[in-house]
Amino acid sequence: MNILYDERLDGALPTVDKAALLDTLRSALPDLDILHTEQDLRPYECDGLSAYRVVPLLVVLPQRLEQVQALLKICHAHQVPVVARGAGTGLSGGALPLAQGILLVMARFNRILEINPAGRFARVQPGVRNLAISQAAAPHGLYYAPDPSSQIACSIGGNVAENAGGVHCLKYGLTVHNLLKVQVLTIEGEYLTLGSDALDAPGFDLLALFTGSEGLLGIVTEVTVKLLPKPQVARVLLASFDSVEKAARAVADIIGAGIIPAGLEMMDNLSLRAAEDFIHAGYPAEAAAILLCELDGVDADVNDDCLRVEAVLKTAGASEVRLARDEAERVRFWAGRKNAFPAVGRISPDYYCMDGTIPRRALPGVLHGIGELSREHGLRVANVFHAGDGNMHPLILFDANQPGELERAEVLGGKILELCVAVGGSITGEHGVGREKINQMCAQFNADELTLFHAVKHAFDPLGLLNPGKNIPTLQRCAEFGAMHVHHGQLPFPDLERF
Amino acid sequence: MNILYDERLDGALPTVDKAALLDTLRSALPDLDILHTEQDLRPYECDGLSAYRVVPLLVVLPQRLEQVQALLKICHAHQVPVVARGAGTGLSGGALPLAQGILLVMARFNRILEINPAGRFARVQPGVRNLAISQAAAPHGLYYAPDPSSQIACSIGGNVAENAGGVHCLKYGLTVHNLLKVQVLTIEGEYLTLGSDALDAPGFDLLALFTGSEGLLGIVTEVTVKLLPKPQVARVLLASFDSVEKAARAVADIIGAGIIPAGLEMMDNLSLRAAEDFIHAGYPAEAAAILLCELDGVDADVNDDCLRVEAVLKTAGASEVRLARDEAERVRFWAGRKNAFPAVGRISPDYYCMDGTIPRRALPGVLHGIGELSREHGLRVANVFHAGDGNMHPLILFDANQPGELERAEVLGGKILELCVAVGGSITGEHGVGREKINQMCAQFNADELTLFHAVKHAFDPLGLLNPGKNIPTLQRCAEFGAMHVHHGQLPFPDLERF
Repeated sequence: MNILYDERLDGALPTVDKAALLDTLRSALPDLDILHTEQDLRPYECDGLSAYRVVPLLVVLPQRLEQVQALLKICHAHQVPVVARGAGTGLSGGALPLAQGILLVMARFNRILEINPAGRFARVQPGVRNLAISQAAAPHGLYYAPDPSSQIACSIGGNVAENAGGVHCLKYGLTVHNLLKVQVLTIEGEYLTLGSDALDAPGFDLLALFTGSEGLLGIVTEVTVKLLPKPQVARVLLASFDSVEKAARAVADIIGAGIIPAGLEMMDNLSLRAAEDFIHAGYPAEAAAILLCELDGVDADVNDDCLRVEAVLKTAGASEVRLARDEAERVRFWAGRKNAFPAVGRISPDYYCMDGTIPRRALPGVLHGIGELSREHGLRVANVFHAGDGNMHPLILFDANQPGELERAEVLGGKILELCVAVGGSITGEHGVGREKINQMCAQFNADELTLFHAVKHAFDPLGLLNPGKNIPTLQRCAEFGAMHVHHGQLPFPDLERF
Repeated sequence: MNILYDERLDGALPTVDKAALLDTLRSALPDLDILHTEQDLRPYECDGLSAYRVVPLLVVLPQRLEQVQALLKICHAHQVPVVARGAGTGLSGGALPLAQGILLVMARFNRILEINPAGRFARVQPGVRNLAISQAAAPHGLYYAPDPSSQIACSIGGNVAENAGGVHCLKYGLTVHNLLKVQVLTIEGEYLTLGSDALDAPGFDLLALFTGSEGLLGIVTEVTVKLLPKPQVARVLLASFDSVEKAARAVADIIGAGIIPAGLEMMDNLSLRAAEDFIHAGYPAEAAAILLCELDGVDADVNDDCLRVEAVLKTAGASEVRLARDEAERVRFWAGRKNAFPAVGRISPDYYCMDGTIPRRALPGVLHGIGELSREHGLRVANVFHAGDGNMHPLILFDANQPGELERAEVLGGKILELCVAVGGSITGEHGVGREKINQMCAQFNADELTLFHAVKHAFDPLGLLNPGKNIPTLQRCAEFGAMHVHHGQLPFPDLERF
């Protein structure tokens, strides 16, 4: 379905004898649940990025770690590729199956093994849902900070694989900053412990290396996460601006004033109007852009910060600043933001969500650049994103039923990501590279850097059996895709400098 | 000098023809400063861990990156080992030279390239001193958070290599949490950019992998660090306890109450008396242990937290809690702590500093265990450490002039580190493994994990030329050293459970 993707560029995929493999697995693991009919396999053909679909060779649903270990040893011995899947909510096709590979579903490992309030950690199986950890910790006044918008459904194993973020990662960090220890199985069926219960572990930092590696290095079998005490209070300010550039500059001003909001989100007119029509959040429909700024902590401190942020916003040219009067209004302000994607879905038959991350100071210029690219390519772009960390989610609106529109959307998406890289940013903040952005990785990294990635991959998985064709492109792919790499200091968009 | 160290266990070190190498370097790099006489080389024979001394084959002092690049290419072509050195303040022998290797001194790369207040970052050369960054950022109200006690002298390149911590890393994180981007040269002379100016970078997290790799993966050539706004106020509480176990439990109670102090330090009677005699900080000489708890931020918040911490300390059994009356007293309280090591140096001819890190909840039991080991081995141990992050610095007091005392100190040190590993901790928190703790790495990791470390090392440095014999032990070394690996859940110190 995706015109820019070509499987031949990922190296020779082996052909697997499905019937023989099924026999081998059944005799070695008689109580392992295996799906193998077209009808049973079809529901697993995609993850949260449904534009890409591949029916897997087999789906396995283990319930015990010994089954996973034995399965991996068999796959290793027979050189069968393995794609791991948690809840399947990923947005970059990281759990997209392979026609010649096994889809290893870890969803049944859903037990919370330990909540330790004194040590402020939780030890859980990989299939446990993100929100379930916070719910289990709530009686102790604790919670798990990273909150991807899919947190009601997504699993912690998938969060580790993708280094998931969320609205609050500006203050509380990404998944990698909230982990103590991860147990993994290698493709050879060996257990490894990465990290430790202590603050720091000697040797190379394999825990950080593994986090966000998108299933290329090993299978997560147990996760120990840090728990934080719940903030006493949270308040939200809503600021309106008559230009997106002004709103973007206000973001840098807030951070520059030494304030770290719990969340700092931006929506442009197209997205805020869509959200307002859908949710009736109370947004000012005429604003060119709004900022939502949440502050949390102890009461006195939050009040103080609210006053400081309000002053910064007014100086930055906000036409109106409103403090949510009560908890109901705070929740309503957030409801508009959290439903912005489905809201945009109501005003366009299809949309394509980007995930570029840029230095905060480049926000005004990049937003201006996206506006220009949008006009050039004749497609509307709605901007709704984590402004505080510079993690943008431009939504490209198109109609897949109009011939050529999907292709134009993809080309425009590629241009937007190249723009992010050109200002010193990256092609993905929290959604991962997966299958979707594999070509843009050629823009992000040069051949030396990609070679090093492959060498690291080789250290864990010499045969390349874990999730091939995702995250790290082959040099062959980058050669075919074209020399997109933007060298530092050579901006292809020199006019951005003036913002 | 160290009885437990045996170079033969690090694999075959090549023999280098010094005269021929000198000729090669002089003709290829005529303006490179090279030291080669015994007299010139001698000052470089050790870093901050002076118990280990090796005169290097050659010392080079480049001033331009092209010289470093050319030098590395020559070393790679001729298979000459390279040890990088910053300011030489490291405490684990990470920059200990090799008799058959080049010592690459990066101290002359001492320029601050950019202070960017809007982007809240500083871009500096690797030889820039830690404190110099904060000084350069001060006019903008910003500073660089990690503060190793050597910060007046140590260089940022060395901080990256060792993932340096400091008194304030409980709240502000280690070096790895305060980096945006690092430029490195590989042993093959290729430039790599790790990280990006944005919050997150796609692909594997090589920035985190590189940070703390102790010179085994590449040479740091440029560092972009995050800058933080200076806290408005800082206040310190001093609490006295009649037992170390009570003080240790109070540490967990403070963190358990949801308070993150800027610093939370502990000193036992032996170390606080030594410090008091030396500095006259105003410590209670009769206390079994004291805690220093610093709180920083905005005024109202800090006052509020001081009251909460005081209540927690009293409930935990503190016999006295004093708030530093003014800035002068606050500085005096810290001066005692910061001079504790030299103070202990005044009461013992020699001391050996450990750096084990343990889960906070294990503090009472481990302190008790250290007391027992101290009595068993007939050597006094002073405890002064970063209690908040569980990073302990037991100082073993001995007299090197008494036959056998150094050896007994080393054996006791090994036992203390094994104890840390047994409770789920690690053998080093912030000082690194270096040459010093290479044998204890065999206790920390099993053969599979060490094999993976070597595979990762191989991805960057296939010939093993960068800092061989440090950080990651060979399997041969671990086999000779003995099967020290402590498996999870098999505590060799079962009586610790009751604490």
